[in-house]
Amino acid sequence: MAGELTVSIDAMGGDAGPAVVVSALVRSIQRHPAVKYILHGDETVLNQLLAKRKSKFAGRVSVRHAASRVAMDDKPSFALRRRRDSSLWHAIESVKSGEAECVVSAGNTGALMAMGMFQLGVINGISRPAIASVWPTQRGQVVVLDCGANIECDAELLVDFAIMGEALARAVFGLPRPRVGLVNVGSEEMKGHDAVKGAAQILRQSNLPMEFCGFIEGNNITEGVVDVAVMDGFTGNVVLKTLEGTAKLIAFFLKGSLKRSFLSRLGAILASGALLALRRKLDPRAYGGGLMLGLNGIVVKAHGGTDAIGFAYALDTAIEMVLGGVNNSIVADRAGVKPEAVAS
Amino acid sequence: MAGELTVSIDAMGGDAGPAVVVSALVRSIQRHPAVKYILHGDETVLNQLLAKRKSKFAGRVSVRHAASRVAMDDKPSFALRRRRDSSLWHAIESVKSGEAECVVSAGNTGALMAMGMFQLGVINGISRPAIASVWPTQRGQVVVLDCGANIECDAELLVDFAIMGEALARAVFGLPRPRVGLVNVGSEEMKGHDAVKGAAQILRQSNLPMEFCGFIEGNNITEGVVDVAVMDGFTGNVVLKTLEGTAKLIAFFLKGSLKRSFLSRLGAILASGALLALRRKLDPRAYGGGLMLGLNGIVVKAHGGTDAIGFAYALDTAIEMVLGGVNNSIVADRAGVKPEAVAS
Repeated sequence: MAGELTVSIDAMGGDAGPAVVVSALVRSIQRHPAVKYILHGDETVLNQLLAKRKSKFAGRVSVRHAASRVAMDDKPSFALRRRRDSSLWHAIESVKSGEAECVVSAGNTGALMAMGMFQLGVINGISRPAIASVWPTQRGQVVVLDCGANIECDAELLVDFAIMGEALARAVFGLPRPRVGLVNVGSEEMKGHDAVKGAAQILRQSNLPMEFCGFIEGNNITEGVVDVAVMDGFTGNVVLKTLEGTAKLIAFFLKGSLKRSFLSRLGAILASGALLALRRKLDPRAYGGGLMLGLNGIVVKAHGGTDAIGFAYALDTAIEMVLGGVNNSIVADRAGVKPEAVAS
Repeated sequence: MAGELTVSIDAMGGDAGPAVVVSALVRSIQRHPAVKYILHGDETVLNQLLAKRKSKFAGRVSVRHAASRVAMDDKPSFALRRRRDSSLWHAIESVKSGEAECVVSAGNTGALMAMGMFQLGVINGISRPAIASVWPTQRGQVVVLDCGANIECDAELLVDFAIMGEALARAVFGLPRPRVGLVNVGSEEMKGHDAVKGAAQILRQSNLPMEFCGFIEGNNITEGVVDVAVMDGFTGNVVLKTLEGTAKLIAFFLKGSLKRSFLSRLGAILASGALLALRRKLDPRAYGGGLMLGLNGIVVKAHGGTDAIGFAYALDTAIEMVLGGVNNSIVADRAGVKPEAVAS
């Protein structure tokens, strides 16, 4: 089914570097027998890493040398001007030239977005790209966007997010009419600022292939009442990072609590299978990192501090997004919003 | 020390009603032997509830009849016009008249804020009140504001929040120079929108009795790197509610995981002390609800669905805020910000 699918990989991005990427590749190659991979980065380092499992990679993985890499703390504007010989730049270029269908990097988010916009351009009809992430809920999963690409958002941009999120949920979750909610400070119509109220009005009048659920509140996101939760990038970024911090806080408290007595230590050992299952459910690595929506090409950002498991999930997600035809859905759905509604 | 302190209580607010309030009163009376209480609400109901423990309440608790109550879903504007005979209105009036130093209600947040602003007015120099809450961190506690009173915030309003939060941390945590951070999408100076950048500039130039830590990100809040985390009310409300939802999600997953096998069930029983300790650490009831800062009077909102433990904590918090002199600190500190900095 995925006969000709090729994934382009920035092998030098992230804190862990190429060794993690090659370990992830071993997993991905087994899971996706028909997919090919292009690794961009330091030729010598990559060939050394690949040499250990030569037979597995033969005919499936090719290496392209890149003379430099984008550092995690490079400013996007600097990277865009001065790092056109980097693994990140070349990895995106492979999608632009058509030799790959998607690109995955654990590198600098801002540089990935800037180079992605510069090289691939933005989908016709979408004003700006957004970063989506997928969270667990009581009933399954939810697409949350924007997670930080757009600090200030007007009504039309929130509508763009709704369309991109709904197309992603359709492609990756297989839902024909995803339920979409606008995150607000209350569910009543008069609540919130002009941007959310305007977006709600446009979405209510549209004939998009989604079930628009109106306003939802923060607590509704993980309840699983919607498949897509839309908010501005400032709020989304703060919420996402606060959740990361809270997950760490809970692990910190749990560790302290379980160490308190002999009985609780014993209990923790007996329940370790259950606690491990919980940790897996909440593991951010299982949720594919940040998905950059709205570019003319599939771009997935793995978490900067990811390991091989997390990077392999990011590869899975990119492949699913290609197979699900996310971008074609976005183009078609954006064209389906009544122009007069958008203009209002 | 708290010789003449009197707490005014809206006994009819919240989902649980007067029975919960009277149970909380039993706890509070024991913890604060020198404090007096005025209960506003349905005289017949309240006297019946108090009759059971008459000797305990004698000389410490008085009842004031109120003919109506504000419903949880009443619009603030409606409550302000049509519910001036309610327990909520009269409870605030006791602070205005000077017979009580603080007011606590588990009722309608919007109505409490609207009636509080109308009756008590806003502290001189503060442009608008805010709602603060106190969260657990890896090192102690953190004041977070605004949690939803102000949907749109400019630089000066964020500065007001910083001052109010710092005064609260000084009064309630006993810190001489609380560490204050502005929540943003990155820690670099050029990040974020105009409001956060402007607020950072004003706070950097000010001589306030706080250690201004610049920008922090969402994950820093629960790490305990600051004592006060400042953000606009839209973001704060969504973050707070998302955290509530996530706490529920984790409880849901943990319950499911621990039920999976005989061993994990046994382990959960043995570790139950530790799991209970964790639940207490994360218990929102222990964090005193929403603290309305910036009004000429101490106003505390207990969680609408609270029980006696939570309401008793809200009473504790209100008493601590009075004893700590929060409002005098706010007045003094607001006056200390260079006027030219505020105007810029």
